[in-house]
Amino acid sequence: MQSYWSTHFLLPGQVHSQAQAVSEALEGAREGVASLVGCEPFEIVFTGGGTEANNLAVHGLLLNRESGRQPSQGTGHVLVSDLEHDSVLSAAAGLGASWEVETITCPPSGVIDPDQVRELLRPETRLVCVQLASPVLGTIQPIREIADACHNLGVPLHCDATQAFGKMPVDVMRLRADTLAVSGHKFYGPKGSGAVYIRRGLQLSPIAFGEPREMGLRPGAENVPAWIGLGAAASLSAKCAEEASTTLLSLRERFSKGVIDSLKGEPSVLCSDSPRLSNTVALELPCNARQVQRAARQLVFTAPLSDAPPDEMTRALRVIGRTESQIARTICVSLGWTSSQEQVDRAVELLADACEVVAVS
Amino acid sequence: MQSYWSTHFLLPGQVHSQAQAVSEALEGAREGVASLVGCEPFEIVFTGGGTEANNLAVHGLLLNRESGRQPSQGTGHVLVSDLEHDSVLSAAAGLGASWEVETITCPPSGVIDPDQVRELLRPETRLVCVQLASPVLGTIQPIREIADACHNLGVPLHCDATQAFGKMPVDVMRLRADTLAVSGHKFYGPKGSGAVYIRRGLQLSPIAFGEPREMGLRPGAENVPAWIGLGAAASLSAKCAEEASTTLLSLRERFSKGVIDSLKGEPSVLCSDSPRLSNTVALELPCNARQVQRAARQLVFTAPLSDAPPDEMTRALRVIGRTESQIARTICVSLGWTSSQEQVDRAVELLADACEVVAVS
Repeated sequence: MQSYWSTHFLLPGQVHSQAQAVSEALEGAREGVASLVGCEPFEIVFTGGGTEANNLAVHGLLLNRESGRQPSQGTGHVLVSDLEHDSVLSAAAGLGASWEVETITCPPSGVIDPDQVRELLRPETRLVCVQLASPVLGTIQPIREIADACHNLGVPLHCDATQAFGKMPVDVMRLRADTLAVSGHKFYGPKGSGAVYIRRGLQLSPIAFGEPREMGLRPGAENVPAWIGLGAAASLSAKCAEEASTTLLSLRERFSKGVIDSLKGEPSVLCSDSPRLSNTVALELPCNARQVQRAARQLVFTAPLSDAPPDEMTRALRVIGRTESQIARTICVSLGWTSSQEQVDRAVELLADACEVVAVS
Repeated sequence: MQSYWSTHFLLPGQVHSQAQAVSEALEGAREGVASLVGCEPFEIVFTGGGTEANNLAVHGLLLNRESGRQPSQGTGHVLVSDLEHDSVLSAAAGLGASWEVETITCPPSGVIDPDQVRELLRPETRLVCVQLASPVLGTIQPIREIADACHNLGVPLHCDATQAFGKMPVDVMRLRADTLAVSGHKFYGPKGSGAVYIRRGLQLSPIAFGEPREMGLRPGAENVPAWIGLGAAASLSAKCAEEASTTLLSLRERFSKGVIDSLKGEPSVLCSDSPRLSNTVALELPCNARQVQRAARQLVFTAPLSDAPPDEMTRALRVIGRTESQIARTICVSLGWTSSQEQVDRAVELLADACEVVAVS
């Protein structure tokens, strides 16, 4: 990214001959993202992050707000899973009064049933939104089966895949989603970078207003350095995700086993029988909520933060039917490419200490 | 910015104690932007760039799209100058059919007449948009007088000030704009960074959907490294703009004089009697459009790029009444902090060469 802050500071559309080099580098980055997703480069639109990617997919598909025209509100039925990120849930809620947004409820397994989606689909359904993997539970959704159910009725499927990259191979030809959201900083790319895969032939409108860039779908000066960084991270992740997945899985299992062995009272792994991301585990601990919070603060784990409005973790745990007292004793652990056995063992020790203090006191 | 990619990679709202340091650094950056604009830090909302800042000011003020609620379209009258950037013009055009958007026409001087704004204001006017300075003509608008006219009727004024920073001191207390757009890469900050000044007490709605960040006005993970860079550039620009302005002015005058002296046929400086940015000059040359284009390509000047849809430069030149043939012979030159006398002299030579070839052929 460095040279695109300083030497190559021009924008791809500018007159100067050096702008051509910037344009070519940006197209190289687009190829990197395409390799991550398994699509053609022209099916990738760069964004400022995952939130913007989800907003663009949902509103861009359903609302016609072409620059200079008045917004056409449209009407119809939209299905959204209750595990979705806020940027999908509230984009759907913000479609307007003429839209009916219905929830696909996730069972305690943490995995959505394609048959339920099939039953909820109607002739007037215009979009279905289901994430690829939960950042809290780690559960992986049967996107292919859900996509097939949608396509039988000609309904597009948007898949928020932001959580999956770098932890599992993602291939949009296999998943068959029609749009797919990418967030750079979730797989070691820069913050403030993201992308949307848009299946060739699918028509979207821009959601922001300004000079048409990114195939007319994203106005504003191209964030060249961030997108170059995103492309590099994507190329790396496309190559390494499968191998990383194996390493992460063995570390995660070492962690889960360590916690279970060292804590009396049987901590339980949530959704343990479901397909899950190799790096993620949600653990219900046999200890006091406050001690869990303190351990989490030391360990950069996530613990429930707030009740009203509920944070992402609290929401996901409620969805699978956990009680408020169970939620308060739950931690969510995500391991990364730089996590080591030593770190995992130390984390187990710290957690065991935190819980034992409670047992004694 | 570097350490916020790597060491301090957490987000300000996270649980870990290191996230507190990130939060403090971000508030320091907010103070930097506040010093640039002359406001309090809590009046600054970070964005992904100038386009988003303009979109947020216009739609955030006029449309109520709070997360989870249906968009309330509203109704009213909006005044927008015809010199505005696409991100203001098309945001206004995209307000919807219930809004009447009226144009404030700029005279050949390149400077809007506050009396014209006074005459166009109506009881139902809900917003006025006038930029601080034109990137093409360099002309500086009488924002203070326009703001006073607006406030007499209780109408807020949005000012796109993106072009002015680093070239002149900007003080929102003196300008009295109610919202003001900032774009990082216009004053040596990073691409993909921007901000909006929002006068205390003014209520805006977010224009995107997701977890509430940036005082609820901008969802999505905070782009910490970019905003740290924006803050540093803003602090520098706040200190240096006045001095830079003097240096830039002398270089610009050297360039204008050089071109006028070396070209027969009297090239003319557009809007030369109006207050202008110290670094910008639009010159109508006594030569062939194609040669001007070639010189521009070598020199990173801007020349008109396209007619349909007209690019920003073509639009601005039409606004002040230049004919199509005059527009084709016009270049727009912006000097920067790193521009030198040698570069200016070389630019004059290259331009003179380009025009002489035409005179001979």
